[in-house]
Amino acid sequence: MKAELALQEPAPLRARRLGIHTQYEAVVFMRTDCHVCRSEGLTAHSRVLLLAGGREVLATLYQVSSDLLSTDEIGLSESAWSRLGADEGAAVYVRHPERVESFSRVRARLFGNRLGDQDFAPILSDVSSGRYSDIELAAFITGTSAFPLDEAETVALTRSMVEVGDRLVWPGGTVVDKHCVGGLPGNRTTPIVVAIVAAHGLTMPKTSSRAITSPAGTADTMETMAPVDLTIEQIRRVVEEESGCIVWGGAVRLSPADDVLIRVERALDLDSEGQLVASVMSKKIAAGSSHLVLDLPVGPTAKIRSEAAAIALSNRLSAVATAFGLRSRIVLTDGAQPVGRGIGPALEAHDVLRVLQLSANAPIDLKERACALAGALLELGGRAQEGAGQQLAARTLEDGRAWAKFQRICEAQGGMRVPPTARQRSPILASSTGVVLSIDNRRIAKLAKLAGAPDAKAAGVELHVRLGDPVAVGEALCTVHAQTPGELRYAMDYASSGAAIFQIGD
Amino acid sequence: MKAELALQEPAPLRARRLGIHTQYEAVVFMRTDCHVCRSEGLTAHSRVLLLAGGREVLATLYQVSSDLLSTDEIGLSESAWSRLGADEGAAVYVRHPERVESFSRVRARLFGNRLGDQDFAPILSDVSSGRYSDIELAAFITGTSAFPLDEAETVALTRSMVEVGDRLVWPGGTVVDKHCVGGLPGNRTTPIVVAIVAAHGLTMPKTSSRAITSPAGTADTMETMAPVDLTIEQIRRVVEEESGCIVWGGAVRLSPADDVLIRVERALDLDSEGQLVASVMSKKIAAGSSHLVLDLPVGPTAKIRSEAAAIALSNRLSAVATAFGLRSRIVLTDGAQPVGRGIGPALEAHDVLRVLQLSANAPIDLKERACALAGALLELGGRAQEGAGQQLAARTLEDGRAWAKFQRICEAQGGMRVPPTARQRSPILASSTGVVLSIDNRRIAKLAKLAGAPDAKAAGVELHVRLGDPVAVGEALCTVHAQTPGELRYAMDYASSGAAIFQIGD
Repeated sequence: MKAELALQEPAPLRARRLGIHTQYEAVVFMRTDCHVCRSEGLTAHSRVLLLAGGREVLATLYQVSSDLLSTDEIGLSESAWSRLGADEGAAVYVRHPERVESFSRVRARLFGNRLGDQDFAPILSDVSSGRYSDIELAAFITGTSAFPLDEAETVALTRSMVEVGDRLVWPGGTVVDKHCVGGLPGNRTTPIVVAIVAAHGLTMPKTSSRAITSPAGTADTMETMAPVDLTIEQIRRVVEEESGCIVWGGAVRLSPADDVLIRVERALDLDSEGQLVASVMSKKIAAGSSHLVLDLPVGPTAKIRSEAAAIALSNRLSAVATAFGLRSRIVLTDGAQPVGRGIGPALEAHDVLRVLQLSANAPIDLKERACALAGALLELGGRAQEGAGQQLAARTLEDGRAWAKFQRICEAQGGMRVPPTARQRSPILASSTGVVLSIDNRRIAKLAKLAGAPDAKAAGVELHVRLGDPVAVGEALCTVHAQTPGELRYAMDYASSGAAIFQIGD
Repeated sequence: MKAELALQEPAPLRARRLGIHTQYEAVVFMRTDCHVCRSEGLTAHSRVLLLAGGREVLATLYQVSSDLLSTDEIGLSESAWSRLGADEGAAVYVRHPERVESFSRVRARLFGNRLGDQDFAPILSDVSSGRYSDIELAAFITGTSAFPLDEAETVALTRSMVEVGDRLVWPGGTVVDKHCVGGLPGNRTTPIVVAIVAAHGLTMPKTSSRAITSPAGTADTMETMAPVDLTIEQIRRVVEEESGCIVWGGAVRLSPADDVLIRVERALDLDSEGQLVASVMSKKIAAGSSHLVLDLPVGPTAKIRSEAAAIALSNRLSAVATAFGLRSRIVLTDGAQPVGRGIGPALEAHDVLRVLQLSANAPIDLKERACALAGALLELGGRAQEGAGQQLAARTLEDGRAWAKFQRICEAQGGMRVPPTARQRSPILASSTGVVLSIDNRRIAKLAKLAGAPDAKAAGVELHVRLGDPVAVGEALCTVHAQTPGELRYAMDYASSGAAIFQIGD
């Protein structure tokens, strides 16, 4: 009987690129009445396995009952299209997939089992290669928050996140790095820190991110002063010549699973300690760092809101660093208000340049923070005695060595640029007389984004006051910068809608 | 300054129904380069708030970079379309939504807080009205599994699930119900149980579901014998006339949030005890039941795999029943193999009819299970002495009262029908001689689905052997029934692909 029945597979569908962006998740569209849906008993939201030209992709199915597609077509989202690498009209076979095997380990953890390297490795491998659906990712993230990762699990998760991506190796033993955990608007110390420590010959190959939810990432700010979109070979050459660089990390796949998880963490507004630690440390380990300074801003509207939370997080970060042989130092900093005056790529670049160029109006807080962090790196990296790092860093700024190094780094990255300035500006005025009692970091960031940052490089917010400053009614608290009148109006609407960005009182 | 700046909202987009089915989640499609995405800074996978004609809908955004849409259009999935109630071309305003407020309570629970009525009520209200994204649903489900619901939380969750839906009230104090927790193929006792207890005048307004992942739901099976798609008024009339009914529950919204959650639980293959209990009990309480018998099949390939698990679940179910004033009894049954002979809507209906009609070849196991459950209800409902219920149930079958009542119920529901039979049949033969050691419930169910069940009513599997039966090589173990040769071949391919449905040994 078996001999009569050759294994039948439904005829393939023709690939059609729909140009639909779904972020990470591969999504496909098939007609409800196509022969595959009918014979396979597929329903909307089924997971399906696509096969074309020797490649396999797991995708989520949405069904179509309109003439958007014909019954012999399969529509592919951009992520499905790129993973499958198919051509328009190519034959795509569709099957019921086996359940992703590693998800059984996630499920085991949801029922109380702890996980080890042998569990995290296949999970992270499947996550980074796009085999998890969004709800499976949400289950992994939520399950490791509701029943928190312990230290051993955090180490194992970090290791697996490193191993699924690229890993950089630099000549020489000491590679320094810094990282700020949790956004504080305007906290753009990195270009200054790199310039100072590279001036002392320490290797600091800094790969930075672009803004995802903030008004500016370090890569966005740096891009207004020099090219940041370098290949790995170009990065190596810059670091070889100048000891340091400040580039966008897009050319290297450091901890790619982290990028996948972060997207869902952000959608859930959920960032557990274990995940945060694994996220930070996996990128640093993959980047080849040996010495690391972590900046933890603490404040009521910062990511870390209490000293107790900062200490718990510090302990976990240090423990994981030690487990991977990294020397680390954690610096708790004041997160009560934005740093410097500018918020937005070019406005922050102007602050950075004022500090490096020793301008009379350089923001003193940005300078001091940069010197504290650079000083810690100089001590960690053996360029300064314990306790003498910050002073050495300040001297390196004051004698012009940092500014000279920064210019050479910019030239090595492709040539120095002048950050743009915005044509459209409008002040936000104090509605009463008194003292500045609080500045809301989150709302200032939102205001800058509404004005067009980070896409509009010159857009953002320029602060005129700091906590404790006395202000008179009608005095400008900040100025909104925008590139178009529409964006300016948009930001000003938000400011006038009652969102309490500044608190003025007695 | 504020006076100059009228609150600006981007111009609306034109609604376009795309005919895309996404199950629960409302999804919208907008051009990456449309004015709303640009001015609002929306990215793929953003959550957006849609406003049209006084209605608001929260949706997930996918962006389109092709000519699938024009830049002044917004494409709506079917769920977005129906919730928004818009017309083709209607003006749809799109805004950044506030985060769903109740999700902060889910997040609090992920950080270790227990939840009460005041938390579950807004969560379940938002879930049932479609305000949670799929990943937010996954977070709720996962978080209440990884850190399990305690008894008080299970009661609170159950209450909130009841309150967001319809609630039925029946005349008279005693309303009996039965429920089987966890699928066992062919376990179609409900029509028999209703006929027996209704014959004794007990009120049993049974609303059943259609199959979602199984080869047949009670509503699918019953539909081959009588109409089941009744309005709430028709249901009331049938119950008034005949004490009982067996209808599809689609006319009433009993615990609608449960339907939403179950979909994601299924995708994650995650069904924690607390959620299972709240799911079952919320439907029963909403249906107005006062006395409840629960059938818990226990077996190696059943949903409940050990007696310890069954007892833990029983305790939680009983505790919640008591909290809501329900009298309940739990019956642990043998879940080692399918019940009866047929698996699939019509094949199961034939088994039901054989039992009711006292046929010589009626499946004895189905009859005994139905009598055990009906007997428990007769005792709970005061129609039999403690311990005498099962015997009374058997007598009610044997003297023809149950069959007479069943026919009257079918007539009241719109007229009795004869279940169809399949044209295409093929046996699966034993490949060795020995004794049937095991029958895999899940694989048998899959075989029946591949043959076309439940959509093809006559399709499914007819079992010829039971555990312990001796079989000779070449003897038929079961027969696959299908409505088309293609579907028959499809199921037979699965059977011949090495999937071990039957184990034959010494």
